[in-house]
Amino acid sequence: MKNYIKADEWNIIEEGFDPHLNKISESIFSLGNGRMGQRANFEETYTGETLLGNYVAGVYYPDKTRVGWWKNGYPEYFAKVLNAANWVGIGVKIDDEVLDLATAAVSDFKRVLNMHEGYLERTFTAKLKSGKTVKVKATRFCSIADDEVGAIRYSITPLNFEGTLTLTPFIDGDVKNQDSNYDEKFWDQVTDQISGAEAYIQLRTKKTEFEVCTGSHIQVYQNGQPLAIDTTEVRKEKFVGQTFAVAVKTNEEVTLIKIAANLSSENYPKDALLKETQSVIASAVAKGFDTLLQEQAAAWATKWEESDIVIEGDVAAQQAIRFNIFQLFQTYTGKDDRLNIGPKGFTGEKYGGSTYWDTEAYCVPFYLATAPQEVSKNLLVYRHKQLDKAIENAAKLGFKDGAALYPMVTMNGEECHNEWEITFEEIHRNGAIAFAIYNYIRYTGDESYLADYGLEVLISIARFWKQRVNWSNEKQQYVMLGVTGPNEYENNVNNNWYTNLLATWCMKYATEAAEIVQKQQPEKYNSLVKSLSFDQKEFADWADIIEKMYYPEDKAQGIFLQQDGYLDKEQILVKDLPASERPINQKWSWDRILRSCFIKQADVLQGLYFFEEDYDLETIRRNFDFYEPRTVHESSLSPCVHSILAAKLNDEARAYEFYLRTARLDLDDYNNDTEDGLHITSMAGTWMSVVEGFAGMRVRNGKLQFNPFLPGKWKSFSFTIGFRGATLKINIAENGINIKNNSTVGLEIGIRNQFYQLDGNAEIEVNNAALV
Amino acid sequence: MKNYIKADEWNIIEEGFDPHLNKISESIFSLGNGRMGQRANFEETYTGETLLGNYVAGVYYPDKTRVGWWKNGYPEYFAKVLNAANWVGIGVKIDDEVLDLATAAVSDFKRVLNMHEGYLERTFTAKLKSGKTVKVKATRFCSIADDEVGAIRYSITPLNFEGTLTLTPFIDGDVKNQDSNYDEKFWDQVTDQISGAEAYIQLRTKKTEFEVCTGSHIQVYQNGQPLAIDTTEVRKEKFVGQTFAVAVKTNEEVTLIKIAANLSSENYPKDALLKETQSVIASAVAKGFDTLLQEQAAAWATKWEESDIVIEGDVAAQQAIRFNIFQLFQTYTGKDDRLNIGPKGFTGEKYGGSTYWDTEAYCVPFYLATAPQEVSKNLLVYRHKQLDKAIENAAKLGFKDGAALYPMVTMNGEECHNEWEITFEEIHRNGAIAFAIYNYIRYTGDESYLADYGLEVLISIARFWKQRVNWSNEKQQYVMLGVTGPNEYENNVNNNWYTNLLATWCMKYATEAAEIVQKQQPEKYNSLVKSLSFDQKEFADWADIIEKMYYPEDKAQGIFLQQDGYLDKEQILVKDLPASERPINQKWSWDRILRSCFIKQADVLQGLYFFEEDYDLETIRRNFDFYEPRTVHESSLSPCVHSILAAKLNDEARAYEFYLRTARLDLDDYNNDTEDGLHITSMAGTWMSVVEGFAGMRVRNGKLQFNPFLPGKWKSFSFTIGFRGATLKINIAENGINIKNNSTVGLEIGIRNQFYQLDGNAEIEVNNAALV
Repeated sequence: MKNYIKADEWNIIEEGFDPHLNKISESIFSLGNGRMGQRANFEETYTGETLLGNYVAGVYYPDKTRVGWWKNGYPEYFAKVLNAANWVGIGVKIDDEVLDLATAAVSDFKRVLNMHEGYLERTFTAKLKSGKTVKVKATRFCSIADDEVGAIRYSITPLNFEGTLTLTPFIDGDVKNQDSNYDEKFWDQVTDQISGAEAYIQLRTKKTEFEVCTGSHIQVYQNGQPLAIDTTEVRKEKFVGQTFAVAVKTNEEVTLIKIAANLSSENYPKDALLKETQSVIASAVAKGFDTLLQEQAAAWATKWEESDIVIEGDVAAQQAIRFNIFQLFQTYTGKDDRLNIGPKGFTGEKYGGSTYWDTEAYCVPFYLATAPQEVSKNLLVYRHKQLDKAIENAAKLGFKDGAALYPMVTMNGEECHNEWEITFEEIHRNGAIAFAIYNYIRYTGDESYLADYGLEVLISIARFWKQRVNWSNEKQQYVMLGVTGPNEYENNVNNNWYTNLLATWCMKYATEAAEIVQKQQPEKYNSLVKSLSFDQKEFADWADIIEKMYYPEDKAQGIFLQQDGYLDKEQILVKDLPASERPINQKWSWDRILRSCFIKQADVLQGLYFFEEDYDLETIRRNFDFYEPRTVHESSLSPCVHSILAAKLNDEARAYEFYLRTARLDLDDYNNDTEDGLHITSMAGTWMSVVEGFAGMRVRNGKLQFNPFLPGKWKSFSFTIGFRGATLKINIAENGINIKNNSTVGLEIGIRNQFYQLDGNAEIEVNNAALV
Repeated sequence: MKNYIKADEWNIIEEGFDPHLNKISESIFSLGNGRMGQRANFEETYTGETLLGNYVAGVYYPDKTRVGWWKNGYPEYFAKVLNAANWVGIGVKIDDEVLDLATAAVSDFKRVLNMHEGYLERTFTAKLKSGKTVKVKATRFCSIADDEVGAIRYSITPLNFEGTLTLTPFIDGDVKNQDSNYDEKFWDQVTDQISGAEAYIQLRTKKTEFEVCTGSHIQVYQNGQPLAIDTTEVRKEKFVGQTFAVAVKTNEEVTLIKIAANLSSENYPKDALLKETQSVIASAVAKGFDTLLQEQAAAWATKWEESDIVIEGDVAAQQAIRFNIFQLFQTYTGKDDRLNIGPKGFTGEKYGGSTYWDTEAYCVPFYLATAPQEVSKNLLVYRHKQLDKAIENAAKLGFKDGAALYPMVTMNGEECHNEWEITFEEIHRNGAIAFAIYNYIRYTGDESYLADYGLEVLISIARFWKQRVNWSNEKQQYVMLGVTGPNEYENNVNNNWYTNLLATWCMKYATEAAEIVQKQQPEKYNSLVKSLSFDQKEFADWADIIEKMYYPEDKAQGIFLQQDGYLDKEQILVKDLPASERPINQKWSWDRILRSCFIKQADVLQGLYFFEEDYDLETIRRNFDFYEPRTVHESSLSPCVHSILAAKLNDEARAYEFYLRTARLDLDDYNNDTEDGLHITSMAGTWMSVVEGFAGMRVRNGKLQFNPFLPGKWKSFSFTIGFRGATLKINIAENGINIKNNSTVGLEIGIRNQFYQLDGNAEIEVNNAALV
């Protein structure tokens, strides 16, 4: 855990340069716009420790797998987020010396991520070996207003000399992935072009043959005045740039504006890419840096209007929650149903792939409430588009008749992961995908989604579960053998309660969904029945499984059992584990972890969170009281579920404590792994802790309900959500809750057990005293 | 399955050259002498498919591991059998053409492995592109009389031309392992020397710094007369040789005798290696090829006297059993307690390592009966020498206080394997190591082994089991969670019956062994107690576990359960599996295999085989009848156990059927994998099927017993065994059993339920009619 980020409501601030923290800061100060993104690598040369990272959404490389022991069914490739052309680079030479913060004496270093307006600013003073000293200020952003464009303003001021400044802005496509399995580079050059202020390079990925054209345009100013420069082309392998010299005097500022664009063959014909990139560059240059930055600020203002959370009385918490929201929107904006939310977003390579069940379980609730309906719908449609691949994937494992198993990790719908206990067994992900459909419809009321997309997915998933269970003669019930639940600290278990529950729930929901579609759109239903070769008898098969499914439980303690045999384990509590043995995933051997009772992340409790309406509070409490002390929360996705359940159980102190575990996970580098990239998807969990936990927001029977409390440390908190056409601002303060309707759509709202009519543009306020 | 090896009682014969079978034949015709060995690669150039393989026992390289997903506790290195300098090479040029069976027209090709005398002979006629035709005869062997020496006699006769024959005998150390993880070569050169007829190269392994000096001496004859030759040195990277030309006439034979030696730094100081190799070469050359070959035949004659099995009425069976015995003795001769029996012996790289539990469970019984007592004792001492490493290995996984976990795969005592469900969980191997001690003492009566070596190992193993079980509050019994049994088609199971049974048996036997040592050698006992910091209270802990261990069983069916939950599986029988779905390890995904009821190899039945005396025949029968139809025998180690149990249950037909599954496993390439090397350890299982199965041989209360039957296809079978100083020849024919005592040691022998006194050099014969 580190603690070097300065608290501020709207800015992430680092003061002073510590090379040991550089890779962490490169992650934290990452920029993105849903279409492209990058780590906060320095523009100028840096020979110290760095992880270079520029990423273009949807562009990946299927790296040939390396495993120790091959298991039948493993995919041969792991689709990786690709480190793409670096367009931020600006070589800086001062007379004969290269500006490099690894070798210069650095002072007044400051990095600021302005989340309100969406840009990164870095300032520093560097004294070179020769004693020559310069002041630098670099501002850059990836535009969310025009998500193919990025821009940099890089200013250098000599403080104690006059001489020659040589600048070499460049685009370098000769990059590689740190996680390349065979040390290969993944890009080939297609073409390049350098002419005057412009430089372009078009690259093609090996195997997948994606093409990306990256272009840049440079303008130079001296003391604010445009400067005519005489550039020399620099062309190397997969590298284009220009170099030029400027005579400088003390205290005279030279500014380089570099406007760049990244266009991919996912959106343009390959042979038009260069021309299209030139045209994008031209219109961005016509606007100019300042206008682009204004548009960026305006676009972010809109996002914040829809999604901000304001916390009063706790600047660190305020900063953290905004950081989480900011990074989520930098990663995914919901414009393109072919994209998804990688666990590291555009901030690192780790985990490859782009899509995990994190999206459905944690991110969908966030986008449902904070972005237009289309955004979360696109996340759902993404899976619908990949249904054929999920059916193929299941077929590879021996399932048939249209059963679908969505992959654990994917880019294009194909499974990427190769770890049998996860790839083949952590199948509850299939349930999360069904649950997200349910959740989306519950939130939006958009039942038409079922006929258009949802039912097909639900039936295919239900078919998988039907084949995945088997009848136990011994138990005279259906069982599900050989699975890994959300708690990955147990593998290949029998009858994971959560997975069994999700399986029958999926079959129930698929049946209900079929009824809805049949009723509402009989023709569509009939055509689906035909295209899916659906046999009505399948309903009866599902019903039989729903009726006769086995769920492990311990009646004496009144708890559900995470899996068969869980109580055979030595029952130790986390509090009794010496600190020196934690985290157990670093301190213990894997077999010891597996046979311990310790739980990595919410498992039974994840089920009680999803389906809380089906259980009375005492049941939830007994299970929470049993599992919580056994949970080590060594996944960043775990604490939010515990926080929400604790809030539900009126355990406000613990709800807040669990919230704290992830709120500043990356800002404080809690797990010593932020240097690999940020934990993007778990950021949605933090949002959930606040909105579903502290504010107790739920949708029940089509109505929003709140069951709020105010964490003791806070003066108040408020957040904005969209719900079925209404935009609401909810404020929870010491005296009670206030809800403002910033739209014309009226709706009924529950607060605790009471319902209130909230008209368009109206406001309700309920004092604590009035809360029942 | 292939069927190209000609049946013959004493020879393995291949007629005709089929390049597609070459790698298989390279395995089958392998040579070895326990100290070194090699695949049957051709002497001359061969540009077709081949797996080059020369191996020196005890010399390995710890290759850096590649795994997909690292688990805490994994070893960083995998010690590999090393492909070493190739000393068989003889380049052959006929005028300007290279002799290469991949490009020549080959006729009259014949390969013969003479098992009786221990050599390989290859003859063929090759017609080159030019039409020039030569006849070649190559004879070679690795001497078991002097196990550092090998020799080749290579004769070429021009059939239709006169011209120049250029020969280039060489030693090539610039070889690599096919299974090198990072495509590295593992050898560096130390020195070389070429002088006249001699050539030497001394190589050093990277990291481990073993050194091996390989030398050769050549002599040339024309028409049987020594020929003075004028050689030119050939020296390349890690390569030494000589080249010379001989003028040849039609039908005049040129013969090259190449005598080679391999000496390793395991046996000599590094700086003396070259000199020692020269001296070994000198004395071998002084003897000459013919004498060396006579010594080889004599040494093999002795081995066959001790170990032969004669089968009358079935040449294929006769050939197969001798092949198995021959390969076992080529792999391990028992002279060196630092060596062990790799699963591929000297016939391939696959599986790396040298030592698996195969040694204790399958090979020890073979060597006990067919070789001097010292041989199997050395196999046991090997583990004793590695006890410290086994304790370290357990410590890495979190065990303490001197608990030992022997590695799954090892060279020097360190774990090599990286597959958590095997490395960390297939811990029953620890029990097999204890059982081998028990088995050795049961067979030899050598109780002194306990005090000298065994007790220390037994206590350390018992300590491991003590820590590996835990008390289940639920069951109020001890349980063992998260293990993989011998049936590797289930992983991370709870309460594997076999493992639980072995665990308590180890604790019982360690206790008994301690009592024996305390009684027989109290001083040694006290000193062991001190050196092991043994606390007498440990006995009580073990006793408590022995008393309160949980064993899964199904009382209704009267069977032991392979593991908790086994009966929840869908119960299908192997006979109902379509042929197209077998072997399931090739046709099914891993998860499907895991949750099926199918068993890879004997598991509960392995336990009933080890501890048959503790169970009545009906219990064994019920379990056999339950598990046998569920066992797919996809490990070559499985059928022998089934064969022995079937024989015990008087199911002669099935005993013979299971025997057949492995008897010719490699000769007929039953599993399409013989090209990787032979299944050396499973060959001991075939021997067991005959001796423990068909002949029903057991040792009970220090006495040999037989319970024989004659497979219907056979006229008779007989075998030789050594037992406590006696050498017995047992013959089982249609009319009954005959036992000849070829020693002066008298003993009492059981046949069925009757005991007979067999004096020195006497004979007993019991007719079937007299058998009760």
